[in-house]
Amino acid sequence: MTKRLGTQTVAFTTFPTINGYGAIVGKKEGEGPIGDCFDSVEDDEFLGEATWEKAETRLFEKGLALVLKKAKITSSDVNYVIAGDLLNQCTASAFGARESGIPYLGIYGACSTMAEGLTLAAMITDGGFSENCIAVAGSHFCSAEKQYRFPLEYGGQRPPSSQWTVTGVGATAVGYGGNIYITHATTGKIEDYGITDANNMGAAMAPAFASTVKAHFEDTGRKPSDYDLILSGDLGKIGKGIAAELLENEGYDIRENYNDCGVMIFDCGKQDTHSGGSGCGCSASVLCGYVLPKMQAGEIKNVLFTATGALMSPTTSQQGESILAIAHAVALSTDCNV
Amino acid sequence: MTKRLGTQTVAFTTFPTINGYGAIVGKKEGEGPIGDCFDSVEDDEFLGEATWEKAETRLFEKGLALVLKKAKITSSDVNYVIAGDLLNQCTASAFGARESGIPYLGIYGACSTMAEGLTLAAMITDGGFSENCIAVAGSHFCSAEKQYRFPLEYGGQRPPSSQWTVTGVGATAVGYGGNIYITHATTGKIEDYGITDANNMGAAMAPAFASTVKAHFEDTGRKPSDYDLILSGDLGKIGKGIAAELLENEGYDIRENYNDCGVMIFDCGKQDTHSGGSGCGCSASVLCGYVLPKMQAGEIKNVLFTATGALMSPTTSQQGESILAIAHAVALSTDCNV
Repeated sequence: MTKRLGTQTVAFTTFPTINGYGAIVGKKEGEGPIGDCFDSVEDDEFLGEATWEKAETRLFEKGLALVLKKAKITSSDVNYVIAGDLLNQCTASAFGARESGIPYLGIYGACSTMAEGLTLAAMITDGGFSENCIAVAGSHFCSAEKQYRFPLEYGGQRPPSSQWTVTGVGATAVGYGGNIYITHATTGKIEDYGITDANNMGAAMAPAFASTVKAHFEDTGRKPSDYDLILSGDLGKIGKGIAAELLENEGYDIRENYNDCGVMIFDCGKQDTHSGGSGCGCSASVLCGYVLPKMQAGEIKNVLFTATGALMSPTTSQQGESILAIAHAVALSTDCNV
Repeated sequence: MTKRLGTQTVAFTTFPTINGYGAIVGKKEGEGPIGDCFDSVEDDEFLGEATWEKAETRLFEKGLALVLKKAKITSSDVNYVIAGDLLNQCTASAFGARESGIPYLGIYGACSTMAEGLTLAAMITDGGFSENCIAVAGSHFCSAEKQYRFPLEYGGQRPPSSQWTVTGVGATAVGYGGNIYITHATTGKIEDYGITDANNMGAAMAPAFASTVKAHFEDTGRKPSDYDLILSGDLGKIGKGIAAELLENEGYDIRENYNDCGVMIFDCGKQDTHSGGSGCGCSASVLCGYVLPKMQAGEIKNVLFTATGALMSPTTSQQGESILAIAHAVALSTDCNV
């Protein structure tokens, strides 16, 4: 039996659910407009470790422990952990899962990682391969800044279009029997719009978001008003505006129910984060800290979570390549008959 | 219906098959003992590009085109491409798939990538989500050496335990109707044996191989003689010996049917590759160039393909972390009733 709809979408038929979720963020994120929603806020950017990379690993360890506790399961109940981050060789994920003893699947989707992980978790569950599966993604401002841009001590000036990598982790436990259903997944294609400015990721990723959301509507026959919230990963203020306009040009006005995780997590003016938040941890922590609790509480019913990623490296940028982008959409609902 | 066996293994029930496969390697690999088996050999380490990273991207592009041609499908027939490599931010995979227009899932499993990709491809197919799905993995000696170790021009001396990153790509098309069945997948846990020498990957990865193969035997009730070939990813000569001994200590003598992709691809003495080949492209190209054609020809029937990966980065090594290891096993057979 095929579960495919149209060209890029699959529909889950056995009602996989998100049975637990948790988000841990850094101090700056905790001071932002939705700072109160997270499970905990780490005031120490080192989390008691000697380096930022080890701090990021600790974030993943803590995220895993948190989601196990909230889903009321232990690591021996979990069949797979699907994890990804921004560090070279995805080491925060691997070292963060080292002590868990859970079969491990590493993924790389840049800032789209949480949506890729949820897609695979739902497929693995719906396909009969897993009873409990964890999808986790995160990032750390300091380790990302050091790796992708400049040493923090350099204090380089940031253009208005730049975004601020979120220090945070979000984790979900996917299985059966919960009340937040993963109903569909629309997997993105790699898009290349020729953008080469690594300080303008929102512009590079907005067309990928529009392309995947358009495919989702076409494949499912849905329309923007079928969702209480259409959420982009981390386009930021500039990318958010472009995304809404691109979809309007395609005949879909999403503005009424549309928001962006990168815009939500910081007060860009007061917190000096320019265009907004970014990083794997941005959409992961906003989903797990803000959106899923609101669904659980019955405040919103249908959400299209569409995390966006920029597929590039400092090396590809230095070699003159453009910034590739991708977006993966996952449809969530508190009603399994949607 | 659960498809789970024991703690780490799943059995596929709808008979997904490998319908096409192809391998492209570099000059040195073409001069090795199995050099004649590959679909093509690239004599130019730059593949006509200006940089090694772009050459690696070209390898992926060529690998994708090759597997589509050999599976007699076009990119519009493919529902997912699952891809991974060793470069920071997995850019060879992403840039290599840029022109394909195929929904893209990026993975990171270091040298275990091909087995992780095949596992996910079989799950996605068996779960009803895909009719055709490509799993591709590759690496390039020059880009890996530059990124992980020293500038090539430096000419650093290599210890006898070191391995040689394979320049090569292997790609498989997974669907239905072929005659090489993917019957089981055993997914590895992250193992940490405290090895810190990045020039002794085989020793770091051998216990992960032994752990996953042991789990596979326990979960399925199989024994070494059920396989015509048990293949480790790229343990090299040193790791291969350790792996066989570790499994012997657990009561499994695999020596009769056991080989290692890293040992097979080079004549280590004549080609000065010390302990053998490594890199995502090692197990991927040996599987797709040597093993699958032999299965297709009926020369071997049952294969346990167990690719191993070292989950680390230069940063984690510099910060004193040990080298984590993982191994994923995929059982292949020309008999769907096995």
